[in-house]
Amino acid sequence: MSIKTLPLSSERIKQIAQEYGTPFHLYDEAAIRKNARQLFAAFSWAPKFREYFAVKALPNPYILEILKEEGCGADCSSMAELYLSEAVGIQGENICFTSNDTPIAEYRKALELGAIINLDDISHIDYLLDNARLPELISFRYNPGPLRNGGNEIIGYPEQAKYGLTQEQLLEGIARCKSLGTKRFGIHTMIVSNELNCDYLAETAQMMFNLAVKIKNQLGVSVEFINLGGGIGIPYRPEQEAVDLQVFGNRVKEAYESILIPAGLTEVAICIESGRMMTGPYGYLVSTAIHYKDTYKNYIGLDSCMADLMRPALYGAYHHITVVGKENAPCDTMYDVTGSLCENNDKFAIDRMLPHIDMGDLLVIHDSGAHGYSMGFNYNGKLRSKELLLREDGSIKQIRRAETLADYFATLDYPHLAK
Amino acid sequence: MSIKTLPLSSERIKQIAQEYGTPFHLYDEAAIRKNARQLFAAFSWAPKFREYFAVKALPNPYILEILKEEGCGADCSSMAELYLSEAVGIQGENICFTSNDTPIAEYRKALELGAIINLDDISHIDYLLDNARLPELISFRYNPGPLRNGGNEIIGYPEQAKYGLTQEQLLEGIARCKSLGTKRFGIHTMIVSNELNCDYLAETAQMMFNLAVKIKNQLGVSVEFINLGGGIGIPYRPEQEAVDLQVFGNRVKEAYESILIPAGLTEVAICIESGRMMTGPYGYLVSTAIHYKDTYKNYIGLDSCMADLMRPALYGAYHHITVVGKENAPCDTMYDVTGSLCENNDKFAIDRMLPHIDMGDLLVIHDSGAHGYSMGFNYNGKLRSKELLLREDGSIKQIRRAETLADYFATLDYPHLAK
Repeated sequence: MSIKTLPLSSERIKQIAQEYGTPFHLYDEAAIRKNARQLFAAFSWAPKFREYFAVKALPNPYILEILKEEGCGADCSSMAELYLSEAVGIQGENICFTSNDTPIAEYRKALELGAIINLDDISHIDYLLDNARLPELISFRYNPGPLRNGGNEIIGYPEQAKYGLTQEQLLEGIARCKSLGTKRFGIHTMIVSNELNCDYLAETAQMMFNLAVKIKNQLGVSVEFINLGGGIGIPYRPEQEAVDLQVFGNRVKEAYESILIPAGLTEVAICIESGRMMTGPYGYLVSTAIHYKDTYKNYIGLDSCMADLMRPALYGAYHHITVVGKENAPCDTMYDVTGSLCENNDKFAIDRMLPHIDMGDLLVIHDSGAHGYSMGFNYNGKLRSKELLLREDGSIKQIRRAETLADYFATLDYPHLAK
Repeated sequence: MSIKTLPLSSERIKQIAQEYGTPFHLYDEAAIRKNARQLFAAFSWAPKFREYFAVKALPNPYILEILKEEGCGADCSSMAELYLSEAVGIQGENICFTSNDTPIAEYRKALELGAIINLDDISHIDYLLDNARLPELISFRYNPGPLRNGGNEIIGYPEQAKYGLTQEQLLEGIARCKSLGTKRFGIHTMIVSNELNCDYLAETAQMMFNLAVKIKNQLGVSVEFINLGGGIGIPYRPEQEAVDLQVFGNRVKEAYESILIPAGLTEVAICIESGRMMTGPYGYLVSTAIHYKDTYKNYIGLDSCMADLMRPALYGAYHHITVVGKENAPCDTMYDVTGSLCENNDKFAIDRMLPHIDMGDLLVIHDSGAHGYSMGFNYNGKLRSKELLLREDGSIKQIRRAETLADYFATLDYPHLAK
């Protein structure tokens, strides 16, 4: 069981909603810091453990600042994310640039920042040579394909995934770069997303460690780091259990000691690139119920929509909902909780048992701290919401303003539109 | 069979790509106008026929201008769309405001513009009375629920759809408004999306006409208009056939003559609110192939991504692809055509047979003229593309600039970010 409580009293949330207006995402700084410390503690055994926060999960520089203070680097996948990291002062090998189908301008920016370049394909060696340069340290993204069962519905089966190199290509790529003078190497994989099964996550470590041994034996190359990717899931449903980071750390340690150490790979840094697990549970989308509708079903309409959180519509994902001030009321009414898009999948919950909801009630949609704001779109001309930070001292800081019509019209050069 | 050709020679497309840079959406003004004229011709028999273009399909004021010149009004679902229509000079009853879970500010703006207010729920009568006013003309959105088989996978089955009033509520709503002094009424429905079956579309007309007769018989109210909604599909696949608008018009005419006229409803205006059919086939997303990758499959990576067109990822939708200059080459190579998002469903095509593609080739993704640009998101920090208009005289006008990093960072107040 995971506990789906709120980080503030219902009175305080109502006060904040009154002051800032709904809807907004609220992020809990203290909880983000606490979780990050638990992660680092779980890997305190590992030489030079690094967590590269997946910026795409929550691309807000104020959040990146907090994570930087806790020791995290940045996993960047685009030009915008590189600029965000740079602005926060995350640079050099504290950035891992993992992209696919990469435009050369993005590689050039990553090289300028001294980021670790994680190649998605063997052809990118020549792409860099022809259009920029090979960096001193090169990482390769491994896609085990049919060598690894699994994957899941979000990320797809490895052999169906567009990402990474085959094992043969990876070995060939390292050999090629070695012959070109490269001395520093790393390997990376990312084959699962939102996974709660610790065994599966640990198997990925074993797979990568065995690959590192093979690279050493075949090519005489000792990789500097092994990046296990992200993919640590979070318990969106109350009946799910969070991954015990200490247990996960211990499982990786066992594999490290049984596979890498005997092979003489004693100083390999362990890296991960969690996004969802670092911030997801510590974000809350706070909305107001503005309409009740009773047709063939009971509907509660909120003042937020897919522009604020697309996961339920895109993946059919469950997000827990708390009605503020009714935390202990019986969940005796079945509702569809909807947004206002002209898109029938704009529903935050379908057939959800909740307390009786009155108009004006605040509804908190849990776990909006990752892939929430960042996935929002402007379809139907809907605007994205503001982001608020609940600081450790209990105060609130607005860390992103809501979009305006002027933002929405910014790319249009047309008379009479708000600018 | 629908013909998937390009509106320009391959030389001219290459020239435009050279001048403006890829990716971009290109819209064909002449074809948009021609299609609009065919629609109006097909309904020339109908008293006061109106097409309210669904702004959400292609919310660009330059496109709205063209459609306005052809006689179209605007179907608006949000504040932004109301402002767009106003800027173009579409006002009054040339706007139909069809929304759900509507914030009061949007109703107020719609009232200010004199738009037709199409109520999604019976509770919205009091919502208007309490917070604004009832307009002189009121429309109700009908959801037949289990009274109508069908719906489809995009819009969902009627009884699962969040939209509209039940028949009982609709009759009650009209009676209530009549008692409050309202004299002008309309009815509306929208129960299908992207439908190519003319029979199904015609059945909707029959259903709505019978409802109008029932309203007249039970309440003594003659509705001014019947809005059949949108939902006319387009042939995304070459083997599909477009809806013959003349046949559709004739089928609606038959129903009009057999149901409405005998009931004395001789002056009822027929309205539709097509979006997709008006602009979808006349939009082309033009991209450059920047990477070829051969792992477990063959991949072509483009310089565009889900930010430009989300339908393949969101719905698994087919969009035809033409390789510029290789229109007549044999389709002998199977590719996945991908964008650069770190999202495995960022693929424009899967297992698609295409001519051999060389790096630098231009790929044109067809049917991007509706729900293309407008659905784009900024996930992964990706930026949305520019929009170009191919004018009737063959010249090109940029009608929307591409997003910049400054746009992406606009809602952040943080040092060192591009503004």
